[in-house]
Amino acid sequence: MPRTRSAPPSPAGPVRLGPDSRTALRPAAVAVDAGFWHDRRETNARVSLPQGPGLLESAGNLHNLRLAAGTAEGEFRGAYPFVDTDVYKWLEAAAWQLAQDGSEELTAHVDRIVSLVAAAQQPDGYLNTWFQLVKGGERYQDLRWGHELYCAGHLIQAAVAHHRATGRSELLDVAVRFADHVDSVFGPPGSGRPVDGVDGHPEVETALVELYRETGERRYLDLAGYFVDRHGHGLVGGEAYCQDRVPLREAANVEGHAVRQLYLLAAAADLAAETGDAELRTVNERLWQAMTATKTHLTGGLGAHHDREDFGDPYELPNERAYCETCAAIASVQWSWRLALLTGEARYSDLIERTLYNGFLAGVSLDGERWLYVNPLQVRDGHTDPGGDQSARRTRWFRCACCPPNAMRLLASLEHYLASGDEQGLQIHQFVTGRYSAGPYAVRAETDYPWEGTVAFTVEESPRDRPWTLSVRIPHWCREFRVRCGSGTYDQTDAPVEGGWLRLERDWAPGDRVVLELGLEPRLTAADPRVDAVRGCAAIERGPLVYCLEQVDHLGGGLDDIVLDATRPLAVKHRPDLLGGVTTVVAGGRRRRIPDAGWWPYGPAGDTAPDDGEPVELTAVPYYAWANREDGSMRVWLPTS
Amino acid sequence: MPRTRSAPPSPAGPVRLGPDSRTALRPAAVAVDAGFWHDRRETNARVSLPQGPGLLESAGNLHNLRLAAGTAEGEFRGAYPFVDTDVYKWLEAAAWQLAQDGSEELTAHVDRIVSLVAAAQQPDGYLNTWFQLVKGGERYQDLRWGHELYCAGHLIQAAVAHHRATGRSELLDVAVRFADHVDSVFGPPGSGRPVDGVDGHPEVETALVELYRETGERRYLDLAGYFVDRHGHGLVGGEAYCQDRVPLREAANVEGHAVRQLYLLAAAADLAAETGDAELRTVNERLWQAMTATKTHLTGGLGAHHDREDFGDPYELPNERAYCETCAAIASVQWSWRLALLTGEARYSDLIERTLYNGFLAGVSLDGERWLYVNPLQVRDGHTDPGGDQSARRTRWFRCACCPPNAMRLLASLEHYLASGDEQGLQIHQFVTGRYSAGPYAVRAETDYPWEGTVAFTVEESPRDRPWTLSVRIPHWCREFRVRCGSGTYDQTDAPVEGGWLRLERDWAPGDRVVLELGLEPRLTAADPRVDAVRGCAAIERGPLVYCLEQVDHLGGGLDDIVLDATRPLAVKHRPDLLGGVTTVVAGGRRRRIPDAGWWPYGPAGDTAPDDGEPVELTAVPYYAWANREDGSMRVWLPTS
Repeated sequence: MPRTRSAPPSPAGPVRLGPDSRTALRPAAVAVDAGFWHDRRETNARVSLPQGPGLLESAGNLHNLRLAAGTAEGEFRGAYPFVDTDVYKWLEAAAWQLAQDGSEELTAHVDRIVSLVAAAQQPDGYLNTWFQLVKGGERYQDLRWGHELYCAGHLIQAAVAHHRATGRSELLDVAVRFADHVDSVFGPPGSGRPVDGVDGHPEVETALVELYRETGERRYLDLAGYFVDRHGHGLVGGEAYCQDRVPLREAANVEGHAVRQLYLLAAAADLAAETGDAELRTVNERLWQAMTATKTHLTGGLGAHHDREDFGDPYELPNERAYCETCAAIASVQWSWRLALLTGEARYSDLIERTLYNGFLAGVSLDGERWLYVNPLQVRDGHTDPGGDQSARRTRWFRCACCPPNAMRLLASLEHYLASGDEQGLQIHQFVTGRYSAGPYAVRAETDYPWEGTVAFTVEESPRDRPWTLSVRIPHWCREFRVRCGSGTYDQTDAPVEGGWLRLERDWAPGDRVVLELGLEPRLTAADPRVDAVRGCAAIERGPLVYCLEQVDHLGGGLDDIVLDATRPLAVKHRPDLLGGVTTVVAGGRRRRIPDAGWWPYGPAGDTAPDDGEPVELTAVPYYAWANREDGSMRVWLPTS
Repeated sequence: MPRTRSAPPSPAGPVRLGPDSRTALRPAAVAVDAGFWHDRRETNARVSLPQGPGLLESAGNLHNLRLAAGTAEGEFRGAYPFVDTDVYKWLEAAAWQLAQDGSEELTAHVDRIVSLVAAAQQPDGYLNTWFQLVKGGERYQDLRWGHELYCAGHLIQAAVAHHRATGRSELLDVAVRFADHVDSVFGPPGSGRPVDGVDGHPEVETALVELYRETGERRYLDLAGYFVDRHGHGLVGGEAYCQDRVPLREAANVEGHAVRQLYLLAAAADLAAETGDAELRTVNERLWQAMTATKTHLTGGLGAHHDREDFGDPYELPNERAYCETCAAIASVQWSWRLALLTGEARYSDLIERTLYNGFLAGVSLDGERWLYVNPLQVRDGHTDPGGDQSARRTRWFRCACCPPNAMRLLASLEHYLASGDEQGLQIHQFVTGRYSAGPYAVRAETDYPWEGTVAFTVEESPRDRPWTLSVRIPHWCREFRVRCGSGTYDQTDAPVEGGWLRLERDWAPGDRVVLELGLEPRLTAADPRVDAVRGCAAIERGPLVYCLEQVDHLGGGLDDIVLDATRPLAVKHRPDLLGGVTTVVAGGRRRRIPDAGWWPYGPAGDTAPDDGEPVELTAVPYYAWANREDGSMRVWLPTS
């Protein structure tokens, strides 16, 4: 599709395209006002976000800023050089929240913390409490581990959000001073800048593009491009962990630390959008395809190794040791959304949907007070929990507290990721109750998704003089749907679906209605045979939701001796009493009788007589809701024989 | 069985029982003089061991000792506080080698390094170059991570070996001074000792028992008992990693860092033997049973997590991320041998056999020059190797070089683990060509095991006045065997086998022969269904050997799309040209045609049409010999459908 040269800036949100951004689509303005995600955002706004300042105080983050500002005394607190980013991500989340409601209390917290950040900044623009307080101001000597530019990146993102949400520039001024400082220090050989380097943890790159979008200052875009292309040249150790093993443009698959890879790729997508760099776009598309086809868990979770938080090898997707960091799910949404806008293709929003409802949301407790850092797909019977950040039990705050404020900022800005517009009309990427508008087009959507498959759209604004297209994503998991539009009715056999988009071009008028009915029959899913971890297993899914068994619903035993009977029908049961109200899936299975093998659990293949075991009714709950009751085992993938 | 109160000390070896040791069996004296293990020991003696001094020099270990002795200048070298142990383990290995041949060159190296160690010791007996040189002599302040007693333990073991092998006491004097120092510092509250603590890495405990056995000094035994029982009380952080989560006597399964757990258990078995502590014996038996039944890989390898080198949960036995540290295999042999002696049961030597031929031996290259630290059961197609210590490629020496000298000491003392005696006779635990003697009994064994199943025993010494029992372990994997003994012939249906022991009680006379023929038909092995990682898979085994596929033998594709046809017969092919001479197993399989799933590798269960794929002949090689040719993928467990 052609880019929309004459478009005004897209709505305030994490990705605000300018008139020259070369994307197929532009974010729409969305107001979410009821339903599944509205409830989660309310919990975020009423519980999670308000807890932030107290937690940042008790963990020492704010104390460090006061120390750096010279307004307090004591020792640096916190285990990592990047603890400032917990503050910045919370500020960003709070800013997106302020864009929606002007709570005086939240405003006061934000103002206070913005002032703290500004006061901690050094005269030349540098800001990093760890290096200022602990490392004697020894800057940019340890780019591999120091996280100085990573911190700068989160500061910039917070500042851009604060400016977009409130129109105020105190924090943006801090960010611009820091960015100008970074720009004065970093550059390629011959640039006259003293340091040719990158940060071991990408993040500043995508932030700099956004700062360019917010300020129009081209230097920030160029600096982002420089950083992206200098990864992979051994400037920070040459390992995949720091995204330094191979230049991004030459990479065949995603690798190394998942969050680092994904933040870098988000920047690469941003750069492709702003510069029209065709090679960089191709790289993005190639790596996204490789990642989803070979390194993505069913939940959309990313990461296969606890050790180094690594993507692992192709098809290496362990269940109990899945390292699906909540931050990686968030970064995946951020990257995929940029590609959805860049290319106009629906599959990127397919992955966003899957990630939001599963791999991401599992990271947040139902009450908004506790978190998971790692989101495994299995907790074994007899699990000995390690405790700490990598616990399979929800935790109030982490030693490395990257995920909670990251989840807060995604939830607070979630409306940004739901719909887009172009000159042809409006595209509905996600099914969320609310109002969607872009340019002259506006519709309202009403739905009880993901529990019900019906989504009713009503046109609210439409140009009178010409037809336009309402595009609705038909999810990749959907095998049957029906759509009623005026007097016409389509289903999956005859609907005008192109590449995942149902295209409804009409002379729309306000009040026109479209009713989409997505078939939500529960289904059993299997994996590519190269995913060794789930051979002989199936997972239960319904709509966008991945389901799991929890031990608490299957008393009288563990889960690891349970076999799913794939021949028996799956039944759906809505349980308003359970886990805040969920639809469960009831399946048939049996509890295998496993003979005592003595001391050695290996024996002749084919020797064990088939054993039907005791029948057992299996109650599957949405994966996102697991670990909100008592501790116990959990399984997404169930053996079928 | 009753203990043998009147027995003389057992032969010089790593476990030398005294007259009061309460064990069912006592190590026999064995001289290995030909065959499979003899060849490996020759490589160890001629290649691996002689390289040690040069590697310890270039890695800085000897330099550190000179620094501590004040005879050199410079900085401490090495990445870890326990680098001294590389020296001690090499010294121990060299000592066991000196017990067998008196190479002047090796003697000279040993003498020189023993002098270095002695010179580095502080006047009060303390010795640890890291703490002396880097930490300003700040002793016992960081028992959790410091490894001071761990280093003491390896020093003591080296010293005991040196004394047993050479009769010389220079190193034993150093060890005794250090042990006396430790005994003056550590003790329970109220003991008058200043520190109540344990080392985060067990090792000193089993060393102290052996020092007691060597010197008769009871204080060392008591100190070992104190250390063993003070683990699990939160003195070093309270985590399983340091064996500090739960007291050993209360543990239900092995847990935490595998090597630490196993060294601690070896000490617990030693203590049970020396003190007759029945509870401690029960704990040993319970934990061994739990470990083998739920946390042991097919190869005998131990460890499921790269992160923290942890045992993982029950039945969590990943293939590509198996963390089967070579040191853990060695520690497992050490522990199991102590239990074999303590209880007289054959299953402990079943595990030793499996571990020696597979999980342990894979850690040593065929040429004796390179090593594996981690011994995975799979390397995927498309594997990106991390390099470093945890590489799936063999490495000349490691940053954390614990495994190579540990392997050297096991190989150099291997004869110690092969046979035992008691008042009733002689027990042959392993099938190795050589001479076996205990008390008045001696036999010679001749065999081409593990390639051939025939083992011929000839009685060489026998008391004339009474019958005695030649016991031969019938391996737990063995389904068919035949034994000819005088005029009698037995097979598995009628042989006098009790608990894994073939008991041949006769009026033996020198020259009497027993010929055992173990059936070595290759076999397919499956796992307990709770081992999720290998659901739907089988492994190829023959005799004690686990087999694997290597990509180099299956050109034209990778291994992860291969399916084993379990209905086709397995054929045996001896290949003197291959990998130093191995018997391969040839199996039938096919290369699956996997349809392109697009970007998402999950889809409706049952949707994929059966696809027979292209037939392919599979050549399986012994697992121990993998990674000795070109890089590529490898699999032990093969999908069968």
